[in-house]
Order: sequence, then structure tokens, then C-alpha cells
Amino acid sequence: MLIVKKFGGTSLGDADRIRAVADHLTRAKKDGNDLLVVVSAMGKTTDDLIRLASDVSDVQPPREYDMLVSSGERISMALLCMALAGNGVESVSFTGSQAGVITDTEHSRARILEVRADRLTDALNSGKIPVVAGFQGVSTDHDVTTLGRGGSDTTAVALAAVLGATVCEIYTDVTGVFSADPRIVVNARRLARVSFEEMLEISATGGRVLQLRSVEFARNHNVPLHVRSSFTWEPGTWVVEEELEMEQAVVTAVTHDDSEAKVTVTGVPDRPGVAARLFRALADRSVNVDMIVQNTSLHGATDISFTVPRVDLDVSVQTCEALRDELRATGVAFDDDVARVSLVGAGMKSHPGVTAQMFETLAANGINIDMISTSTIRISCIVRKDLVEDAVRLLHSAFDLTQTT
Amino acid sequence: MLIVKKFGGTSLGDADRIRAVADHLTRAKKDGNDLLVVVSAMGKTTDDLIRLASDVSDVQPPREYDMLVSSGERISMALLCMALAGNGVESVSFTGSQAGVITDTEHSRARILEVRADRLTDALNSGKIPVVAGFQGVSTDHDVTTLGRGGSDTTAVALAAVLGATVCEIYTDVTGVFSADPRIVVNARRLARVSFEEMLEISATGGRVLQLRSVEFARNHNVPLHVRSSFTWEPGTWVVEEELEMEQAVVTAVTHDDSEAKVTVTGVPDRPGVAARLFRALADRSVNVDMIVQNTSLHGATDISFTVPRVDLDVSVQTCEALRDELRATGVAFDDDVARVSLVGAGMKSHPGVTAQMFETLAANGINIDMISTSTIRISCIVRKDLVEDAVRLLHSAFDLTQTT
Repeated sequence: MLIVKKFGGTSLGDADRIRAVADHLTRAKKDGNDLLVVVSAMGKTTDDLIRLASDVSDVQPPREYDMLVSSGERISMALLCMALAGNGVESVSFTGSQAGVITDTEHSRARILEVRADRLTDALNSGKIPVVAGFQGVSTDHDVTTLGRGGSDTTAVALAAVLGATVCEIYTDVTGVFSADPRIVVNARRLARVSFEEMLEISATGGRVLQLRSVEFARNHNVPLHVRSSFTWEPGTWVVEEELEMEQAVVTAVTHDDSEAKVTVTGVPDRPGVAARLFRALADRSVNVDMIVQNTSLHGATDISFTVPRVDLDVSVQTCEALRDELRATGVAFDDDVARVSLVGAGMKSHPGVTAQMFETLAANGINIDMISTSTIRISCIVRKDLVEDAVRLLHSAFDLTQTT
Repeated sequence: MLIVKKFGGTSLGDADRIRAVADHLTRAKKDGNDLLVVVSAMGKTTDDLIRLASDVSDVQPPREYDMLVSSGERISMALLCMALAGNGVESVSFTGSQAGVITDTEHSRARILEVRADRLTDALNSGKIPVVAGFQGVSTDHDVTTLGRGGSDTTAVALAAVLGATVCEIYTDVTGVFSADPRIVVNARRLARVSFEEMLEISATGGRVLQLRSVEFARNHNVPLHVRSSFTWEPGTWVVEEELEMEQAVVTAVTHDDSEAKVTVTGVPDRPGVAARLFRALADRSVNVDMIVQNTSLHGATDISFTVPRVDLDVSVQTCEALRDELRATGVAFDDDVARVSLVGAGMKSHPGVTAQMFETLAANGINIDMISTSTIRISCIVRKDLVEDAVRLLHSAFDLTQTT
């Protein structure tokens, strides 16, 4: 049975943590499992490197940036192999390139094209633990690439998929995925099991434990994930394919996200092509638009509102202003004092009352809703930023998420 | 005209130093030179990594050790390329592997077998500055290797040789090679030019500016070296092929080394094979024996003395003790309170009086000589450690090295 285990930066934060991980792996190996390990850089190593780069130059060619920020994983993987050797366990480290992680040439957000896992299977067949640098690969141009934020999770899932692992365990500094952020809701419940679809929505709407992309990858390749703590080693949250025979919780989690801002283009003519022109222009500037709401047309004109990451707010407003005349819009407004609260649950599909109950709960507590968007298993509302934590607590209580099993 | 420029750790110690190096390269590039840069890790990065490894484990597999200690150069080369980009100069970084530095599989002291410089020449032909990670290569087994202490100099010289560079400039935190250690001899003179042979002897006997191995490599491939400062940028010391038509200084430099200890095996039978057996046993324990002196035989027995790096003293004494019965030696003694003072000068070959003057100078000042060894252009004496700095000053003065041109 092959288990892929991925350890994040806090799990490898210092020499003691690295030895603790090595001890865990030594026990797991003695239990008779085949293991493959994927590591992130130690603690804040990568952040430190990014700061150093800013100190050196404002101009950071993407190829060199990737060369720089991929060094941290080399350090942690070599150290982990040394700690394993100290325990008498044979292991061998692999850079992204050595592990055969072939990517496209899009530096800093490369996508994995293929995994040529020969060296990994050789190591496994000889009883060794391969320890692979996460977050990185080698491009078809033979340059070092990185996979973007959360890339180590993606590496782990990709290797688990290619090598047919039973499970991909994601070790982190929390004990799993919760029904809400435990810092806000003290009696938030650790979820024993969520479906890939729920996890996708949770990740997309503010749950920070797993990156959206690695969950997508796991779903597409049906790799069971197990999110758990490298500090307590207790069982955490399984992320698995939805089991239709099971009764689903109507609502599984409340999530929130205060990293976005809202932009509104007012008074645009309600005719085909306007929205397309606007969002093409934003896409060309690499702005990642999230929620989009278009109001009902009034006198042949309409307002289009959308949310963007706050870091992209300036470029978004500039882009809209530049198009204002062409689109014959009456104005461009923005609001960065907003936040999003969302309900996620696979059972929502068959329980149409959830939306109404959510709106009622917020309204009864004087929280105004600014924008709404829904999917089959999620409802999101944009509210005032200073009210979002209240909204999370109210909804967690209204849907009784502490008790749901 | 291609110039290879190598920058050591102190030359790249922080963001300011990296920008200073980038500014220098920008000027040199605008002067119309083709440039190839080799970098070491920033400041004490590699030492910090070695310390971290000790904290993690006593067992450090050589392959993982090399993976670890080769990360520092990746960081400095990427940062230097960013600084160059900030100056509008196109450059491209290469790991040892990407630069085509192919080595044998001897981790931590790998030897360069071949340089497949295609990517470097492509970069040069397109007008870019290749920035190469020193100290590292990739083995014939596709693993990352390192070249041992001073390995970045070796990388620079190897690339200069392969690419036919006009000169290999070694930038460091001193302004060149001196007639003696300036910390000991205040009026030590910077040497404008020394021969490869002299530089080899200087490096071998305590001059710390250039590693022996890189000088050997430069001599074997006739690559002129220019050792100079990255803080003042002034012209430093040229290390070049000996020019026979020039009159040679009799003595060029006084060097010293207090990192060795002396071992004596007493009363061994004076018959063939005894020394061979002893030094084979030491070589098998990887002890790097330096000076060897065998006394005249007396009643068919003799004493063999030799010096070893102090870190190898324990294993050396153990090795000798283990052979004591087999060699029928009467005893094994050691002395770690010794140091070596040496005179180096290409002109010694034709000036036989140097040895006598050296001994007279030391004797006149009450400094006893414990061991002597000579080459055609060097004389070394082992003296008491607490007297070695006096010996350096006395000899520097006796041979008038401040004035010699």
C-alpha cells in the first residue's frame, strides 16, 4: 500500500520539527507501508527569499524568480533525508526535475504536463522512501518552474495519482477542515469527511487548508485526500468522492473571505457583447474575476458588479475606466470594504430552503446583503467587512453546524 | 573578448553587495566585453546550512549533503540576475547541471569530467551574461555533486578554459595576493604578478586567497587568473605562466599555516616497504599527509615524522598505533603545538643561498626548526606554533619583501 505524505512549511519549521516528521515516517515505514514524501520549504523560507528579491531589484525575470523560490524545498528535503538516515531509514531526495515533474513554460504558475516517475518507482522498488521537492518542476525548455501558491499540494496529488497511491495525506498545522474558521467560531466542528465538490467550494470561498487547484486535481484523478496535523498526528478530514447512498448534511461549512473588493460599472447599455468586452479586457490584464452580478435592465441600461482580489483592484478600475467611453457606461465605482460569507453543503441540491434561511438569518440581525451568487452546493453573500465575522457565527449557529454529523 | 568573473560569498553578502556587483558587470558589459559570471553562495549561507544539518542528524548521506549545500548558489545567482535585469542588462542563470558541468560521482569532492557548454555559448551568442552556480555539478548518475572547498574557483577556471576566456577574474574581499599575511606583516606588499608555480606553493602552504585545486586547473589549462577586490575594484594580482625572459624575484612571499599537527613513529626498522605500509594505511583512512621526513638510520632503525591536518590527528595516531606491532616500531608520538613557515619564490632555483639565510634568520632569533622540507621554489620549516608569527615577520624583513618588485 503506497501512501503519499505531504508536509507543509510549519510541519518542517525547524530541526526539531524535521526530526518529528522523520520519526513519524520511521513508524509508518515499520508498519509495512510504502511511502513517498513531498515537502514544502521550511517555515517562512520562501517568504524570506521573496523579500530578499525585492531588496535586490524591482525587476524580477520570471525564470530567475522561479530559480530563487524553488531553493527552499531542496533544503528541507535534504535535511529530512538526513534525519531519516539518522533513524536508519533509507530515503533519497528528488528535485522537481529529478522526480520527472514536467511542466509547461509558464513560470510561477506552471501546470504539470506529465510525470516521468521512473526514478521514483526505482527508489520505491528498492525499499527507499523518495522525498520529493514540492511546488516545482522542469519545463519543456529545461528551465526550473514553480506551480504557484499551494503548489506542493498539487505535486503531492499528482504523484499520488501517477503512482496509484491509496491516499494522499496532507500534513499541516491544523487538525483538519472545520465547519467554520475556529478562530471565529469557538465550537466549530472538525469535519470527518467531505466530498471533493464540497472541498472545492470551501477552498474557493475562503477555507485556507487546501488550495483549490490541488483539490481539483484530486477530484479529476479520484485521489482520496486526508488533511491532518503533523503536531498531534490525530486523524483529520478525509476528502473523497461523494457517496450517493449516504445521507448528506444539508450544510457542511460556513466559509468567509475578506481578501476581495467589489467593482461596479454603472449604466451600461443592455446589449449583447458588453459583458464579454469588459471581462475579456480584465482577463487580458490577468485579473481573476470571481463573483459577477448583473442587475435587471432598467430603461435599456444595467449595472454590472464583480469582485476581484483586492491586490487587483487598481488595475481593474483602470481597465474599466479605459473602457468607459467605448461601453458608454455612466460610471465606475469600487468598494473595498466588503467581505464574502458562504454556505457550502452537498445536501443543498435537494433542500431549496437553505437560501431563504440564510437571508432571513442575516436580515434578522441587521446584516445587509450587497451581492449574491450561488452554485448547486453553495450560496455566497457579499456583506460589509466589519460584519462578516458576526455573519459566520450567526449562520454556524442557525444551521446547527456544531451538532451535525 | 570573453572575461569570466567569479564572485565569492563576501562579494555577494547582502542585497547592497549584489547590486554593487551588478553595477560593476553593467559597466563591464557596456565596455564591450563578453562576460560569464560564476557565483558562490551569499556570505555564510553554506555554513548556516551545514550547521542546520548537524542540528537535524549525525548521519548525513553524501548525496543529500550535496543537495543541501548546493542550494546557496541558486539563490545568489537568481538574485544577481534580478539585479542585472533592474539595470537593463540581460542575463540568465544556470545551475551546475544546467551549465553542463559533468562530474564523477564522488560527492562533496567531485571532479569535473567534462563541460557541455552548449547552453552557455547560446546565452553568450545572444548577448546575455550567463550567471553560473559555482561549486556544483551533476554526476554521471544524474545526482547533484559539489566540488569541495573552494569549488567555485574551480568552476570559474574550468569554464574559462572550456570557453577560451582571456582571463578568469577571481573577486574576493582582499585586494590580491600578498608577500605575507597583512594581518601579521603590516607592510606586506601586494604582488602584481606571480607565476602559477609560485601560486601553487603559496596556496599549498597557507595562502588562503586561492584554493590549490583551482590554481592547478588554471596552470594545466593556462588560464590567466586575476585575483582582485569586489569592494575597491582596483587591479589585484595576476597569476600567469612564468615568463622566462623576466628576472625573477628570489623570494616572492612568506606564508604560514598553523592548521597541521605532527606525528612521529619512532624506531621502525630501516627496510623497504615500511613507509609504504604506513602511508597506504593513512591514505585508506583518507588522511591527507603533507610533509614527510625520515631521519637517517641509526643501528638499523629510523624515525618517520609527518604532518597532517589537525582534524585528522586522532585518526592518524590511531592508525599508527594499530600498525605499531606489525611495523615493529618502538613508539608513536604526536605534537599539535606546531606551525609551518614557508618561503616561496621562482628565483630560488638559481639562488642556493636562500635556505641558509632562512635558517640563519630563524636561528639568530632563537626559533628552533623541527622539520624541514623543500621543493625547487619553496622551503618550509616546522616551528613552535607560538613563534610562527615572529618567524613570518623576521623572514619578510630579512628578505626585504616589502621592497622587492
